[in-house]
Amino acid sequence: MPFVRIALRKGQSAEYRKAISDAVHEALVETANVPPADRFQIISEHEAGTLIYDAGYLDIVRTDDIVVIQITLNQGRTLEVKKRLFARIAERLADAVKMRKEDVFINLVEVAKENWSFGNGIAQYAG
Amino acid sequence: MPFVRIALRKGQSAEYRKAISDAVHEALVETANVPPADRFQIISEHEAGTLIYDAGYLDIVRTDDIVVIQITLNQGRTLEVKKRLFARIAERLADAVKMRKEDVFINLVEVAKENWSFGNGIAQYAG
Amino acid sequence: MPFVRIALRKGQSAEYRKAISDAVHEALVETANVPPADRFQIISEHEAGTLIYDAGYLDIVRTDDIVVIQITLNQGRTLEVKKRLFARIAERLADAVKMRKEDVFINLVEVAKENWSFGNGIAQYAG
Repeated sequence: MPFVRIALRKGQSAEYRKAISDAVHEALVETANVPPADRFQIISEHEAGTLIYDAGYLDIVRTDDIVVIQITLNQGRTLEVKKRLFARIAERLADAVKMRKEDVFINLVEVAKENWSFGNGIAQYAG
Repeated sequence: MPFVRIALRKGQSAEYRKAISDAVHEALVETANVPPADRFQIISEHEAGTLIYDAGYLDIVRTDDIVVIQITLNQGRTLEVKKRLFARIAERLADAVKMRKEDVFINLVEVAKENWSFGNGIAQYAG
Repeated sequence: MPFVRIALRKGQSAEYRKAISDAVHEALVETANVPPADRFQIISEHEAGTLIYDAGYLDIVRTDDIVVIQITLNQGRTLEVKKRLFARIAERLADAVKMRKEDVFINLVEVAKENWSFGNGIAQYAG
């Protein structure tokens, strides 16, 4: 159910992208009660000038290694869960690819649980 | 008003993509009260390793022919309408390009009707 | 905090894309109380047939110069602010690159303020 869009600069290896993909998913499983098999992600690579970030907003120093992670997921996670999720994603990315935690940008988009179909044209979570 | 992002694996023909685009739009018109001319879509193609899916979550067998459809639309559709929409998208895709219904992944993101401008800098649906 | 996805047809210059990026951001700063340094955007370019729009919906004549702008931002802006934002984006784009205002498509996706991490794994806006 989380559907995750991960954007980064062009030029990294397939291994690097795979490590990022794994790290983000594992953080979701560990902190946000996501089933391990509930994994759906798109990774996009961007040329200079098309992945635009402020290098100092909120006194956080960002570099071209920035990764922008937009996660669409069911509403209802508490603030504590969201905080743990953010922290865990940054930790996992630092561990996996030595990403600077300053370069981890995350945004959550919350939707109703009936807003998903995982195949067969059925709303599997609609209860 | 629905704004639709459709993601699939790279390597299909323009005709295939067009058929998918048509099928998704027709399903919206048929089930979700979308005007036929209210069509705005982006289709993106992805290399192996950048469109990531679980091949068995919820006991649904998915393949590289998966299509991930994220639809931003006005809030307020009932559960019944959403169910009919999901079913119809899968049917239409099966009819149009012999897509396996297991390979149809759909996510709805609902927004307020005042959250759209269809041109000229005006919020045409704001009432 | 606004995270902005800008989609346009392939084939424009880097200067053109930069001017669009600047125009959209300046409109957010001028009308929606966005800090000047709070700038995070992705610009994507699309081949013919993958950026699909209706050329006449709501009697607005659109062309291949269409730009589709999806802005994820904190909930709570009033209708008046949204209207000013839409108008200002269209004006700025017309000024910057002579864009036809009919070709400016905008969609807002609103989220809770706790749904952002700007780096370091922290929910900076969670209060």
